[in-house]
Amino acid sequence: MSITLQSKKKNDLDSAFRRKTVYLFVAGVGAVGGTLVRQIAKLNNPEVHIQILGLCNSKQVIWNPNQEDPFSDLIISNDVTDWDQIIDQLTSSDRESIIFVDATGSKAVAYQYAKLLSHGVHVATPSKRANTLDQIYFDELASFPRSGRAEYKYETAVGAGLPIINTVKNLVESGDEVTKISGVVSGTMTYIFDQLQQGVPFSKIITNAKELGYSEPDPRDDLSGEDVARKFLILARTCGYKLEREHINVESLVPQELIDHQIEGFFDHISFYDTHWKSRNSKALVNNRRLRYVGEFTPEGIDIGIKEVATESPLGNLKGTDNLIQIYTKRYSSSPIVIQGPGAGKDVTAAGVLSDILEIGKKC
Amino acid sequence: MSITLQSKKKNDLDSAFRRKTVYLFVAGVGAVGGTLVRQIAKLNNPEVHIQILGLCNSKQVIWNPNQEDPFSDLIISNDVTDWDQIIDQLTSSDRESIIFVDATGSKAVAYQYAKLLSHGVHVATPSKRANTLDQIYFDELASFPRSGRAEYKYETAVGAGLPIINTVKNLVESGDEVTKISGVVSGTMTYIFDQLQQGVPFSKIITNAKELGYSEPDPRDDLSGEDVARKFLILARTCGYKLEREHINVESLVPQELIDHQIEGFFDHISFYDTHWKSRNSKALVNNRRLRYVGEFTPEGIDIGIKEVATESPLGNLKGTDNLIQIYTKRYSSSPIVIQGPGAGKDVTAAGVLSDILEIGKKC
Repeated sequence: MSITLQSKKKNDLDSAFRRKTVYLFVAGVGAVGGTLVRQIAKLNNPEVHIQILGLCNSKQVIWNPNQEDPFSDLIISNDVTDWDQIIDQLTSSDRESIIFVDATGSKAVAYQYAKLLSHGVHVATPSKRANTLDQIYFDELASFPRSGRAEYKYETAVGAGLPIINTVKNLVESGDEVTKISGVVSGTMTYIFDQLQQGVPFSKIITNAKELGYSEPDPRDDLSGEDVARKFLILARTCGYKLEREHINVESLVPQELIDHQIEGFFDHISFYDTHWKSRNSKALVNNRRLRYVGEFTPEGIDIGIKEVATESPLGNLKGTDNLIQIYTKRYSSSPIVIQGPGAGKDVTAAGVLSDILEIGKKC
Repeated sequence: MSITLQSKKKNDLDSAFRRKTVYLFVAGVGAVGGTLVRQIAKLNNPEVHIQILGLCNSKQVIWNPNQEDPFSDLIISNDVTDWDQIIDQLTSSDRESIIFVDATGSKAVAYQYAKLLSHGVHVATPSKRANTLDQIYFDELASFPRSGRAEYKYETAVGAGLPIINTVKNLVESGDEVTKISGVVSGTMTYIFDQLQQGVPFSKIITNAKELGYSEPDPRDDLSGEDVARKFLILARTCGYKLEREHINVESLVPQELIDHQIEGFFDHISFYDTHWKSRNSKALVNNRRLRYVGEFTPEGIDIGIKEVATESPLGNLKGTDNLIQIYTKRYSSSPIVIQGPGAGKDVTAAGVLSDILEIGKKC
């Protein structure tokens, strides 16, 4: 590193006008990936210039796209994207400062990160996949930035654009120790319990959530608590704790009998459970409490499920699709750091990935 | 920059074991500076090694101190620290990756930042001084990191260790636009109004605050609202807005008649105002509201003063010496990013400066 800094000192005039360029490959150009590409086209950052090297969806790949309108070359195709070919091309490139953005959510792509990072290709992703595979894979990925070989960023995997992961990382790196993280990390769950409290039947809420795009196409993916479990697994591992997904206790909102149904069957039967949820909600309200879907991590483990919280508490006041995270550490022991806000949405998620990209760019 | 990244790719084995070293000069080794030095002595960060190049208080400077016990060479002295000599030594050094930490709060030291930065010496500070001088000086300091010449970090100037400044910077850099920042950024003020609400007389609160170390030795420095005004000036400038201190409306809690008193005279007379504050607090409580000292920045300007907030709002629920900041932007328009927690204290402030140092180190 010495040469660079030296030259910085010696060539003040030159470096004052030098903007760093990073080369981006965007895998997945749906909601988040597509929004990211559009945000980049409009961005004029004084420190970092981002050039789109390539992009792909599950069907095709475009190298060196039109920078103003990167989607113009995407055509309707029946091909299947060859990931190995893309990864080979990126890892064998002579170009420096390549960043691979994974907005696919694909497990197969997640397994490519180690190869990319080991070849000096940086990775930024909003996906929870890679970090929730085996602990040993998480450790491998985390080792690359630590040894200075390549950056690996996943700020948006928890809380979208909210500064949660970086805050936890900074605390740990500066010698603090996280003793507890608790809160709500699912906007879908906030929506469900907020609606329940307003008297909307459970089955109606689930149908609405799907229609409004607040839930996955199959709402059971949210109702199972799997999304929350994965986010807490990532938080715990980022704090330096080692554990696997199966060590987490998760309370599922999917009735046992509806787990194996087809999606249509699920929607046909879900209204059978309206009375159960109405009564559970009423019981909480009577005690001046509200239902919330809460996760809690401590060094003893992770616990995910429905909790009754005080109506006038920060969690009780949660509205819309907001997230709220409380971080307790050795230094923040009596009063935690609290971070609250919208924890989903393509604009804020893409912007969070963009911040990760710029942070990598500034280090290049 | 190209050479470095290239060598990263070519020498994976080598770089895997290379920890970056930064050289620190700590100006001011009181509460925050002293705590920082102690935190560094205990730190074992895998990416960045921090070596203390020198430290000083207002009386003397120690170069190359004992790394395990850096204070051991500090003696009682009647000398006066020669800042020009220190700055000259740092700017003429052949060493790279020097970071100057200013924990003095001194205006004279704040005016040295530009010289340090222009010579490639990075600056990290919890002090509000430099950023609240003329806008033109703020712009000059901000230009150095933008042009890649040297880093300038001041995360802890607002909210201590809470991730406020970095969050604002990331939002702006990723193309978002801040439309409003509001909240409480003075732990002292939270304490005063929380105590008032509990029935403690105003004069007693002020005496307690001083004794507990929650206020400055002369409590008028907090009561004037100057601390809050400066923090909001820094927030607004960090958002990219240009304004001077005199453009800010500030409601002072110091009675006009007591402004020019000696400190003893101030404490002798402050109880004359107990009735006024008792009645003002009662009036708010009757309306189910609470008094809070709130700042608000919008592109139209900054307004600082006492506000009546709903008892059951986030600001109404604020306790202890917590801060709470709400950030509204184009992308976070309906629901803001909220960051809450302890906004003062030597441990969390020093840890925040340490995070700034590590972030600089990783870029070196």
